[in-house]
Amino acid sequence: MTTFTFTPIAFVRTPYADTAQVPKGCGAQHEAEGVIEVERALEAGLGDIEGFSHLFVIWVFDRSPGVELFGIAPTDDRPHGVFATRSPKRPNPIGLTVVELLGREGCRLRVRGVDMLDGTPVLDLKPYLSSVDPQKLRRGWLAEAEARRRG
Amino acid sequence: MTTFTFTPIAFVRTPYADTAQVPKGCGAQHEAEGVIEVERALEAGLGDIEGFSHLFVIWVFDRSPGVELFGIAPTDDRPHGVFATRSPKRPNPIGLTVVELLGREGCRLRVRGVDMLDGTPVLDLKPYLSSVDPQKLRRGWLAEAEARRRG
Repeated sequence: MTTFTFTPIAFVRTPYADTAQVPKGCGAQHEAEGVIEVERALEAGLGDIEGFSHLFVIWVFDRSPGVELFGIAPTDDRPHGVFATRSPKRPNPIGLTVVELLGREGCRLRVRGVDMLDGTPVLDLKPYLSSVDPQKLRRGWLAEAEARRRG
Repeated sequence: MTTFTFTPIAFVRTPYADTAQVPKGCGAQHEAEGVIEVERALEAGLGDIEGFSHLFVIWVFDRSPGVELFGIAPTDDRPHGVFATRSPKRPNPIGLTVVELLGREGCRLRVRGVDMLDGTPVLDLKPYLSSVDPQKLRRGWLAEAEARRRG
């Protein structure tokens, strides 16, 4: 079977030593600041990144507790397919977070909006270039779960 | 050195046999339709995904031509760091695309907005839940390059 192997380009410093500390569920705010420490050998790859206000961070749930294809998310009391959630229990334990770039000092990127554990390995960084129009966005079970909670 | 190995959860059918066919550069529109064919063993993971209008697709540039930390993007005639671009020549050749979900038949997801080659391996699918406010978004060198072109 085809497989792909990746080496971290960076590690993230965050305030979270334990998943219980990470805000989850409806209305969770991710305002925590952190530092993405990029490998020195890759510093040239950061050229001009400071012009972007937001970045995609693609990272690894390196302490993830296995796979659950259909399970309960913290935002709801009903089960959903894992690809319809942000659960860490994914076939490939890859995380995706949008962060705000606050500043750069050499290989260190100061960011806001981290929701991963301290020491999390990062596979890639990309500029956030455009947004889906909120009027065109449907959020399926999550919108329904939020409505039930408000109800 | 720590490494992480992943197995594709899906492959994408797209109209593009060659990278020259993929629209690139300023104002490129990604309206092409494609099909994400998810592995049968993972079908339970797709439960409730049809409620979401847009998905993140995390995939592999499996035919990528090596790494270039600082290079010229098709959108500009000046070089930029690879982490400030969507170049395929990344240390970890991972792609990220937002697609619109048009429909699902079992393990097949019909989507709009593909920009990867036909047969591209997919590592993960996630629901697109919210957008960065366009008023808060800065797009660095890309905005500058677009402004220069408009001249």
